[in-house]
Amino acid sequence: MDLSEDQLIEAIRRVLSGAGPEVIVGPGDDAAVVRSGAGELVLTTDALVEGVHFRTELTTPRDLGYKAVAVNVSDVAAMAASPRFALCSLTLPPATEASWVVELAGGMRECCDEFALSLVGGNLSRGDELSIVVTLTGEVVPGRAVRRDGARAGDRLVVTGSLGGSAAGLRLASQRSWSDAERDALKRYMRPIPRVGEAGVLAGHGVTSMIDVSDGLALDLSRLCEASGVGARVEIASIPVHPAATPAEALGGGEDYELLATLPDLYAVEEARSELRDGFGVSLSDIGGIIDEGLLAVHEDGTEGPLIAEGAMEGWDHFR
Amino acid sequence: MDLSEDQLIEAIRRVLSGAGPEVIVGPGDDAAVVRSGAGELVLTTDALVEGVHFRTELTTPRDLGYKAVAVNVSDVAAMAASPRFALCSLTLPPATEASWVVELAGGMRECCDEFALSLVGGNLSRGDELSIVVTLTGEVVPGRAVRRDGARAGDRLVVTGSLGGSAAGLRLASQRSWSDAERDALKRYMRPIPRVGEAGVLAGHGVTSMIDVSDGLALDLSRLCEASGVGARVEIASIPVHPAATPAEALGGGEDYELLATLPDLYAVEEARSELRDGFGVSLSDIGGIIDEGLLAVHEDGTEGPLIAEGAMEGWDHFR
Repeated sequence: MDLSEDQLIEAIRRVLSGAGPEVIVGPGDDAAVVRSGAGELVLTTDALVEGVHFRTELTTPRDLGYKAVAVNVSDVAAMAASPRFALCSLTLPPATEASWVVELAGGMRECCDEFALSLVGGNLSRGDELSIVVTLTGEVVPGRAVRRDGARAGDRLVVTGSLGGSAAGLRLASQRSWSDAERDALKRYMRPIPRVGEAGVLAGHGVTSMIDVSDGLALDLSRLCEASGVGARVEIASIPVHPAATPAEALGGGEDYELLATLPDLYAVEEARSELRDGFGVSLSDIGGIIDEGLLAVHEDGTEGPLIAEGAMEGWDHFR
Repeated sequence: MDLSEDQLIEAIRRVLSGAGPEVIVGPGDDAAVVRSGAGELVLTTDALVEGVHFRTELTTPRDLGYKAVAVNVSDVAAMAASPRFALCSLTLPPATEASWVVELAGGMRECCDEFALSLVGGNLSRGDELSIVVTLTGEVVPGRAVRRDGARAGDRLVVTGSLGGSAAGLRLASQRSWSDAERDALKRYMRPIPRVGEAGVLAGHGVTSMIDVSDGLALDLSRLCEASGVGARVEIASIPVHPAATPAEALGGGEDYELLATLPDLYAVEEARSELRDGFGVSLSDIGGIIDEGLLAVHEDGTEGPLIAEGAMEGWDHFR
């Protein structure tokens, strides 16, 4: 591929432009938002492809089914919306066992039940490569969807939970025994926790922009900043690194499905933090601030440098 | 795979059962119907996988993009609903040219424009196998979605347009020159015509059940009959065979995307037929009647036999 993933998406977006007034948020955010009847409908789709997103020998079909739904729930959450209905398109190699597929469906059902959504339809295709595409609809109070493009200079930059756990889990998956922290990292990789309720709390405290961390903090932050036309200064020491992860995994590992958001001031951060702690037992870290331009890392010794160069891993671009 | 496609879908459906009261039509019809706000939302998803549904050397990316949307529009039409929004999940091998993808998006846009829907979002993944999964939402007047399960003994069985053209087109694709009929068949294969407006006409004349013919008349009729708990008697001579197609292609070829429906009486057939002819230039063929049980073929000499054995091709089951 001669373009990066984001460049290709931009090229596709130009071809598709011209949507009517009923499209409130089109391609390029965590999910689309459209007018539907009297309300607003949130729409998103995400794929898990064998060999790229998972290896069947390292996961159970039940965990995989759970994750296929969960990564989409995370996109709906990142709009501060509630997931409602799911569809699934499965491509299965001819040798796939029916029992494996039924277990996969069981995992999907588990995640659907946990987040009170219904899997209402789907499609089966034969193919050489196993892949699972889930599409989700969500509901949001009209005008209340939180986009990527609302961050303003002066906002505080916050992230829920911890980062790098999923990348550490993937690295540790082939080990034979694990510490408690490593076991937790594995779980983060196998069964990511979409932050649906947490997104609602942030929305209640005036969040100005939000994205879920699916491709790594550095890359997803650059997307949020680009959409908002701003920059960010990240205090490296404030990044909540998962206890089993390396700093590089926290900055560039991906698949954390935590929420990265901007809040208008320190007061909002404090209020949201205590509500998240009391209501969900989930931490909220203030990792820096929004500035006019540039992506800067502030190191512990006070020196500043570009954020991207900091990560040993570069975030997950499917076409690089 | 140790189960047929329909058996596997049934096994998955059992795992997923337990949807709430807001699910009006769950898995197993052309599309799902759910309550959303004050209205009803139609949801469907369908995939085109390289080597299974298409070969890149036999199609242009523009035609392929068009078809990926059109096959979903057809599922929405088969519920007598109007398509509204589309999402697309693309899996692309690393060697895919960006220009090919942009052409694909252009074809999607063409179909979206033609049927007044908007492509609002999507997802790109890397993978070894090229695949295109499109998900569509549609709108329908509450209570008016037409399902597969409403056919009753005594109903007339009708089909729009002609059958077998797409299968003939696939067979003829590698030829170097074509007759007019063959050229039309090729077009049916490359750019199927979803019957959106036609479905509305049938709905206006009391259609009792409807399905789109995506996997062949014999197989899709058996699905409609099974869902409705009825049988059918098909007059073989009345099947509208595309001029470039063989009778076997018309009965078992698949990918026609015509509507197969049941109407309460001959009067409704006549009324719907003249409205379809005048409004759309599309024919409506009365190919038989609904009976209590069994799938029967009535041959020109008046003899009857099982319908399934008639077809040299057996319809498109992805796992058989």
